[in-house]
Amino acid sequence: MKTVLIVCDGIGDRLKNGKTPLEAAHKPNMDEISKRGINGIMDTIAPGVIPGSDTAHLSIFGYDAYKYYTGRGPFEALGAGVELDADDISFRCNFGSIQEGMIVDRRAGRDEYGLDKLSELLDFEIDGVKVVFKKSSGHRAVLVFKGSNLSEKISETDPEELNSPARKSFPLDETKEAKFTSKILNEFTERAYRVLEKSEINKERIKAGKLPANIVLARGSGKLGKLECFEKKYGFKGACVAGVNLIKGVSRAVGLDILEVEGANGHVNSNIKGKVEKTIEALNSYDFVFLHIKGTDEISHDGNFEGKVNMIEKIDHEIGELLNLDITLALTADHSTPVTVKEHTADPVPIAVSGDVRTDLVEKFGERTCARGDLGRISGINLANILFDISKKSKKFGA
Amino acid sequence: MKTVLIVCDGIGDRLKNGKTPLEAAHKPNMDEISKRGINGIMDTIAPGVIPGSDTAHLSIFGYDAYKYYTGRGPFEALGAGVELDADDISFRCNFGSIQEGMIVDRRAGRDEYGLDKLSELLDFEIDGVKVVFKKSSGHRAVLVFKGSNLSEKISETDPEELNSPARKSFPLDETKEAKFTSKILNEFTERAYRVLEKSEINKERIKAGKLPANIVLARGSGKLGKLECFEKKYGFKGACVAGVNLIKGVSRAVGLDILEVEGANGHVNSNIKGKVEKTIEALNSYDFVFLHIKGTDEISHDGNFEGKVNMIEKIDHEIGELLNLDITLALTADHSTPVTVKEHTADPVPIAVSGDVRTDLVEKFGERTCARGDLGRISGINLANILFDISKKSKKFGA
Repeated sequence: MKTVLIVCDGIGDRLKNGKTPLEAAHKPNMDEISKRGINGIMDTIAPGVIPGSDTAHLSIFGYDAYKYYTGRGPFEALGAGVELDADDISFRCNFGSIQEGMIVDRRAGRDEYGLDKLSELLDFEIDGVKVVFKKSSGHRAVLVFKGSNLSEKISETDPEELNSPARKSFPLDETKEAKFTSKILNEFTERAYRVLEKSEINKERIKAGKLPANIVLARGSGKLGKLECFEKKYGFKGACVAGVNLIKGVSRAVGLDILEVEGANGHVNSNIKGKVEKTIEALNSYDFVFLHIKGTDEISHDGNFEGKVNMIEKIDHEIGELLNLDITLALTADHSTPVTVKEHTADPVPIAVSGDVRTDLVEKFGERTCARGDLGRISGINLANILFDISKKSKKFGA
Repeated sequence: MKTVLIVCDGIGDRLKNGKTPLEAAHKPNMDEISKRGINGIMDTIAPGVIPGSDTAHLSIFGYDAYKYYTGRGPFEALGAGVELDADDISFRCNFGSIQEGMIVDRRAGRDEYGLDKLSELLDFEIDGVKVVFKKSSGHRAVLVFKGSNLSEKISETDPEELNSPARKSFPLDETKEAKFTSKILNEFTERAYRVLEKSEINKERIKAGKLPANIVLARGSGKLGKLECFEKKYGFKGACVAGVNLIKGVSRAVGLDILEVEGANGHVNSNIKGKVEKTIEALNSYDFVFLHIKGTDEISHDGNFEGKVNMIEKIDHEIGELLNLDITLALTADHSTPVTVKEHTADPVPIAVSGDVRTDLVEKFGERTCARGDLGRISGINLANILFDISKKSKKFGA
């Protein structure tokens, strides 16, 4: 039996006028999974702990986020296609705009013009450390330090505010590695500024009335470490269908193959139909396919209740085909993002699993209905084992 | 208040034609425990982790299987009545039949003739290691190495297939202990073969048209380690009423006294009536009696739905007397063995506890009914504490 796990990012919510967006939406397919299946609620990390999308996904793939998570950087870097070694230090970056030493825009006007060419100028070598710099989506980029004696325990250079210079990085512990790495980051920031400032591209940008992209602001410092490969851990291969780099990166980190879909962009207008088709196609080659949909989270951060309802209805319409397959089908989220809060919260997420399960009395997929299901309240770290056991793909512990 | 814990091995199931065997069975006594009691579901190890009977029982006695379980061997050896020290290395074995270097039957035709006498020939001393060999049930036996510098990290000699020679054991890690122990096992296998091959018993077996029992095939290598004794851990004595060696062995490992019952054989035709009588009698001397019934698992491995229903009804009939006692009475399983899967699964098991409990609305003992009980979804490792607290036998943590 094969397994499909659909994660609708941030789909869980709280009440607004007495209903959550899931409760307000018309979503016959999601409800059908609940009706055929077994339902529950899930703390992706632990009760009361607000998950990031990165830590939540590590956990629902069966990896202890407290053990393996040091920062977002390595997952962004992997998602952007950089090859990482276990001890590399990675950062997520913005191209920003600086004038007379002060940041005037943290995102270089959100204007991508020439950023790919600028990125090619920033692959330095500093004190024996190889620097890999790569543009990712929009004004974003990733930065990786490859070398020995490096540490992720250093502060960020992105001040996350305007009218401030780029911050100097400083070590966050007493080790010589942290001291060395913060020095490398400061030197990179300086050299990158000098190279970007006098680049042809930035002259062109200014001429065209755009803000220059002349400073690199780094944050989310992290080290990948050694994660046991998904295939080794579970005994079969898995694939990821996702639009956003961060989720692709977490998936790559645990050893899922990344399947690309045209028009899958992580936004509300993403090509969900194409992602569902890719998921179905992937079941020919993989025992596990993870389908991630970001739009529900994006619109929640905007605080848009109606938009979230519409997004849920759109997803519901597109996933219908998956209900015709003889598979273990799980529908859940990585965390809640209530539209009234506009940020992640620790409210448990609803989960429904259809397949060879003990069905329960739940007839609607929702936060409160699923809480009354027979799966009870589960932890994200156990999800993969639960699903693969239902699919009869697990190994026994003991005799 | 005294406590009786009834474990029906593998009683949990999945749906077949919309019902589990427990749901299909007429079992007024089990339902009465649910009705009088508090109900829930239990992950004996952890959600999604498929338990062995050995690991599951360690856990429900309150011992962390991840910490204490190294292999099945020591529990089989204890169950067969061998005295074990913490560092002894134990194996479960078969007598097999080998011809011209190839295994022709892994179970010596399942013919016990003379195996007890043959076993007496195999208590060697090899390189300072004392070898204890003892026949257990049927064609089975246990093998124990007593000495210093031994390790359980070695491979099995049982190839678990025909037309193969017995495997050479090799070390599974780099230690000199593993190297040494695999050498001892290989030498034992050789010497045992030479002794068995020329034994009088095997000449008789061949003359009588039986397969010779001329090779010992070992697996399940393990070390008992130091388990805190049940009486020390909980403050009172407990007893085990069981038919199968493995369960007797786990019970002995944690310090329960083993009470023997004529005709208790671990099969569907076991003397359950006698076991229940022994349980009631044992309550005169023990504060905790564990009653294990294996038949439900045996018939599940055969995939026999109707047989499982009948077995449940038979058990139900026999346990009635226990409901007349003023005790904490718990009814559960060590794992699910769905008849449709014919193997252990990680589906949580139902549990019902009557006694001085907060009763709930559950009226039938079953996988789905118990899931809606007020005990919620609990972990096996907590079961003993929960039961002994209900019996007012626990100590406070803190002041």
